[in-house]
Amino acid sequence: MEIRKIIVTGRMYKDLERLALLDTKREYLFLPEAEVNSNHFNWADGYVAFKPTESFHFGKLQWVHALGAGVDAFLLNREWKKDVVLTRTVGSFGRKIGEYCLSYILADVQRHEHFQQHQTERLWLPSEQKLLHQLNIVIFGTGTIGEEVGRMLSTLGVTVYGISRSGASNCHFNRVVPMTEMHTLLPHVDWVINTLPLTRMTESLFDLRLFSYLNGAGFINVGRGASVDEIGLLGAIERGHVRRAVLDVFREEPLPEQSPMWAHPNVVITPHISAVTGLEEAMDGLLAVLREIDSGLERISHSVDVCRGY
Amino acid sequence: MEIRKIIVTGRMYKDLERLALLDTKREYLFLPEAEVNSNHFNWADGYVAFKPTESFHFGKLQWVHALGAGVDAFLLNREWKKDVVLTRTVGSFGRKIGEYCLSYILADVQRHEHFQQHQTERLWLPSEQKLLHQLNIVIFGTGTIGEEVGRMLSTLGVTVYGISRSGASNCHFNRVVPMTEMHTLLPHVDWVINTLPLTRMTESLFDLRLFSYLNGAGFINVGRGASVDEIGLLGAIERGHVRRAVLDVFREEPLPEQSPMWAHPNVVITPHISAVTGLEEAMDGLLAVLREIDSGLERISHSVDVCRGY
Repeated sequence: MEIRKIIVTGRMYKDLERLALLDTKREYLFLPEAEVNSNHFNWADGYVAFKPTESFHFGKLQWVHALGAGVDAFLLNREWKKDVVLTRTVGSFGRKIGEYCLSYILADVQRHEHFQQHQTERLWLPSEQKLLHQLNIVIFGTGTIGEEVGRMLSTLGVTVYGISRSGASNCHFNRVVPMTEMHTLLPHVDWVINTLPLTRMTESLFDLRLFSYLNGAGFINVGRGASVDEIGLLGAIERGHVRRAVLDVFREEPLPEQSPMWAHPNVVITPHISAVTGLEEAMDGLLAVLREIDSGLERISHSVDVCRGY
Repeated sequence: MEIRKIIVTGRMYKDLERLALLDTKREYLFLPEAEVNSNHFNWADGYVAFKPTESFHFGKLQWVHALGAGVDAFLLNREWKKDVVLTRTVGSFGRKIGEYCLSYILADVQRHEHFQQHQTERLWLPSEQKLLHQLNIVIFGTGTIGEEVGRMLSTLGVTVYGISRSGASNCHFNRVVPMTEMHTLLPHVDWVINTLPLTRMTESLFDLRLFSYLNGAGFINVGRGASVDEIGLLGAIERGHVRRAVLDVFREEPLPEQSPMWAHPNVVITPHISAVTGLEEAMDGLLAVLREIDSGLERISHSVDVCRGY
C-alpha cells in the first residue's frame, strides 16, 4: 500500500498542520469538517480524523486513521469497504483511563464526600476506611485499555477480574471469564468498569438485567455511552443494585441539559475526559502508523479488525 | 526481660480483653483510662495503650507498647526511664496512609471538584488532565511509613523524593536529601507529604519560612499536627506558596470548632483517619512483640529509639 495524499480533518486539523513539515514526502490537506466534500475522497488515499465527515465516502481511500481509540463512529451503521485499512490511536489511553478510574474508586473508598460534608458542619467523626486490597473489581474488556486499567489496580492490591468475548486468560487479571459467564462474577464485585468498544454486540449491553446481578456495586463507564441503557441504569440505582455510577461517556454527547442524570445524587458526570487524545500523542501515533505502512508491514499495529468492530 | 503482668488501657481496652484468652501465661488488667492509678504501675511490668494515662509513672514497668505508630505522647516532655523498652504498632499504616495520600492527589489531578461544580451547573466542558508521571512529590520522612507511601507513588510513575535527617538513599525514592538541603527540592515539587514523627526537631518544622520555598504546591499532613505552624500555613496559602492543604492531623484534636481551617476553601480536613489502628492489627502487633520478648531477642522489631524519639 502506498499513501501519497492525506486529508486531515476534525477538531485537531489546525494543530496537525505541523505534519506537513515533519513528513514532506506526502501531500496533506488540512480542512475543517464542513469544508470536506465528495471530491476530496476521490483525490486522497488517506483520511485522518476522529470520525467520518457528513460527506464521507470511500472514493479512492486505501487507509483511514482514527485519532481516538474508539472506531465505532466509522464502523457502526456502515459497510466497510474491503481492503481499506482502518487504524486507531492507542497511546497512553490505558494509563489515562486507569488513573481516572482509580481516582474515583479511591475517593469513594476514602469517603471524600462524607468527610467534606462533615467539614462544612465542623464535625470531627473518625471512622475506619476500607483498603484497596479488600476490593473485587471486574473490568469489561481485556484489550489494550482494559488490560492497563487491570494492571494498575492489581499493582495496588485490588483483586481484578476480566470479562471478554473469549474469556482468554491474561496475566494482569486474577481471572478472565467469557461474556456468557458474567453472572458468576457480578454478584461478588465492588466495582464494575466498562472499557468495551461500541459494537453491535455491546450496544445496550449494560441494561437492567445485567445490573440486576450486582449487589450495590459501583459502575464506571469509560467505554462508550451507547453500551449503557440509561433507563436501566437509573432503575438499577433505585433498586440498590448499583450504589453509585461514574459516567464519562454518554449515548448523546454533550449530555443533553434535560437529562435526569445531571442532578442524580448517585451519579457522577464528567464530560468525556478520561482519555483525551493529546496533540503529541495524535501526531506520534499517526507518524508511527505511516512508518509501518511505508515499510510494507503486512499487519500494521493498532489496525482494527473491522469484522469484530475493534 | 520477662513480662508477667500487663495493664491495657485507652479506647480499645474493652475490645482487647480477648488477649487474656489468647495469651494465658500472663496476667492482664483491662481498664478505662480514668481507673488506672498509681498502684497499677507498681504492680505491672507491661503497659499497653495509645498514650500514657494522667496517672502514668514508670513504677515497676519494664516495657511500654504504643497501640499507634506515633509515640510522641510517651516521649515528648518526659524523661524516659533507661531500660524501659518502648515498642509501637506498625502494621499496615504505610499502606493506609499511602492510599489516603494517593486518593487526594488523584482527586486533585483529575479535578473532581471542578467537574462536580460543572455537573451542578449542567455544564459540559472537557479538558485534558495531568497524569501522575508528570508529578514531582517530596515525602518528609523515609521510615516505614514514608517509604511505603513512596513505593506506592513510584509504582504509579510519580517522581518521588525523600527528605530525612540523614539523607540516606532508599530504593523507593528517586533521591533522598538531608533536611539541611530541602531548599534544593522544594521549589520544584507539586506536592509535599509530611510523614515525620513529632520530636523536638520536627515541632513546628513546617512554618512560613519552609513553605515559602514552595511554588504553589499541595501539602498533605499525615504525620503530626504539631509539626505544622498553622498560622504559617495559612499565610503560605494566602501568598500562593501552598495551593491546597490536606490535613489529617492537628495540634489540637479534635480540631477546635472556632479554627479558621474548617471553612478555608483551600483546606481539606479529615478527622485523623489516614491510619486508624484496627483491632486485629493492634492484637497482632502486640502478640508479635510479646513473642519476641519471650524468645529473648536482643533487639525487638518496632522498638523505638527513645533518644531520636521514633
